[in-house]
Amino acid sequence: MEQNQRIILVERPDGMPDETHLKMETAAIAEPGEGQVLLKTIYLSLDPYMRGRMNAGPSYAPRVELGDVMVGGAVSQVVASKHPEWQAGDFVVTRSGWQSYAVVDGNRLRRVDPKLAAISTALGVLGMPGFTAYAGLLNIGKPQPGETVVVAAASGAVGQVVGQIAKLKGCRVVGVAGAEDKCKYVVDELGFDACVNYKSDDFPAQLAAACPDGIDVYFENVGGRVLSAVIGLLNDFSRMPVCGLIAQYNGTELPLEHNELPKLMRAVLTHRVLIRGFIQSDFQADFPQFLRDMSEWVRNGDVKYREDVVQGLENAVSAFQGLLVGRNRGKMLVQVAEDPSR
Amino acid sequence: MEQNQRIILVERPDGMPDETHLKMETAAIAEPGEGQVLLKTIYLSLDPYMRGRMNAGPSYAPRVELGDVMVGGAVSQVVASKHPEWQAGDFVVTRSGWQSYAVVDGNRLRRVDPKLAAISTALGVLGMPGFTAYAGLLNIGKPQPGETVVVAAASGAVGQVVGQIAKLKGCRVVGVAGAEDKCKYVVDELGFDACVNYKSDDFPAQLAAACPDGIDVYFENVGGRVLSAVIGLLNDFSRMPVCGLIAQYNGTELPLEHNELPKLMRAVLTHRVLIRGFIQSDFQADFPQFLRDMSEWVRNGDVKYREDVVQGLENAVSAFQGLLVGRNRGKMLVQVAEDPSR
Repeated sequence: MEQNQRIILVERPDGMPDETHLKMETAAIAEPGEGQVLLKTIYLSLDPYMRGRMNAGPSYAPRVELGDVMVGGAVSQVVASKHPEWQAGDFVVTRSGWQSYAVVDGNRLRRVDPKLAAISTALGVLGMPGFTAYAGLLNIGKPQPGETVVVAAASGAVGQVVGQIAKLKGCRVVGVAGAEDKCKYVVDELGFDACVNYKSDDFPAQLAAACPDGIDVYFENVGGRVLSAVIGLLNDFSRMPVCGLIAQYNGTELPLEHNELPKLMRAVLTHRVLIRGFIQSDFQADFPQFLRDMSEWVRNGDVKYREDVVQGLENAVSAFQGLLVGRNRGKMLVQVAEDPSR
Repeated sequence: MEQNQRIILVERPDGMPDETHLKMETAAIAEPGEGQVLLKTIYLSLDPYMRGRMNAGPSYAPRVELGDVMVGGAVSQVVASKHPEWQAGDFVVTRSGWQSYAVVDGNRLRRVDPKLAAISTALGVLGMPGFTAYAGLLNIGKPQPGETVVVAAASGAVGQVVGQIAKLKGCRVVGVAGAEDKCKYVVDELGFDACVNYKSDDFPAQLAAACPDGIDVYFENVGGRVLSAVIGLLNDFSRMPVCGLIAQYNGTELPLEHNELPKLMRAVLTHRVLIRGFIQSDFQADFPQFLRDMSEWVRNGDVKYREDVVQGLENAVSAFQGLLVGRNRGKMLVQVAEDPSR
């Protein structure tokens, strides 16, 4: 009899999470109650925000309790339904976590149309990362034609979309990434104007050279030395949407460096910079328009995307470690079961 | 024959400016040309932003060149006019600098009505500092009834107005100042709900106690340890207008402390904080409405103000030093000549 494989948070990591914190176990597959559906996970999404959920401290969303299944979005297929809207065979996206089966409230699913695009895109370009890029860039970044937009983590699930939308808006787009092949990808395949490797010794000078007219929009999801180099290049009235700080997620104490807060504040004052943190759900009302725009852009080739698919739930922890240090190439997914839509 | 006394920037200060940087000299009084007026300075305004103008580096406004009269706003009386709009005896406010007489383009004056309020208020509550408070608080801070507003430099020319407008908007208002008598003043005289002395050893704990519901708006014009203590108290969707950083102005290098930039960025992300730098002229279109609102508030006693008037241009440099370390009590002015409107 088939069992549910699931990954439990058993201990809070202090730095990089591993199998001592995230343990795989086997359990019986639950039965759906009234209004519920039983789902079989096909693709599990791995995203940087998950690291924050493993901490004890408060964040913008509840932490995962010890002993609970690790949270996460997934594309799944309905196996059995006790909800009028859903039938066995339907494809859906929901937050069912790091497990191979899940029983979920039927009201908390979003339908995925396999004719529209590959179903995995509901976790990437047509899902949360794509919407994060769209909502943050357009609502906060407000890129204008001819402006320079710098995108941190440029080849990641969010960054690749940010840069392509900024190109559609007529901007000069400069990516920042941590590997030469990532830089090559966003320039050659995605049409960014330039890309700088933040691991280069002379990264600040390279970034300055790539932004001869300064920076009007910095899409921040990294923090650390990328942010530090950006500060000195910010133009008057520049905007900085902040949706992540992956370089800081495993930092367990404040690094003993120069205090760079005064430098940032001086730039904010002198150049009248706008900095605003957000999560995509702050702009939930824009989601239908996002789906219409992005589906069209993907269909006509204006927005391309790349996925990095790891096979098997048993490899989720090591894949997540890779994501935190930038080993992924594009949107990170775990294929938990065969994709019947392909 | 009367001469023009003026203070010249002769050397760029590295820390606190003094008479080796700002030198008083005597010169002939110039004649106004066509379209110009000759002004006699009555009150000279001293403001923290002036420190930035003494530096070689770029700021949001041009630096003062070596050998030039130090810039600054003043309330003056027209002595002679070759401009159709102005007559001898008129009171005006303009940026005529640290000098007892000035020849100025007649198109660059704003009329001051001595019947509306004391003419000195055109440099304070009804002038640039009052407008800075009004424009930044209402356009960026957007205080809502019941919210907590924290005001740095609470008893200063800007801070005292910020807190009183926030009270008018129904907020809980907590001041931060550097002396017990300043705290007593903003609570007892201006109606702030509380005020905390940032020089106290347990300042962060005192600030937290004064803000039991966290901070929704932090009006930033100080930086340094005040900002550091505020970061941990910021609520979801809080706003931080930034119009000054007086604690940093004399800092000639980045202090060797913990790097607090990651702490700020984490708060921005977790609580979706908005930070925005501004100068009052960014909101110039609001100035007429400000004059109407603030004149009424001053007239009916909703907004009170305090001025700290030093006698004689020869005392301007020491008064400015006092301003930078917070020795002033209210809006800092230098009385350069007798006020004939009193």
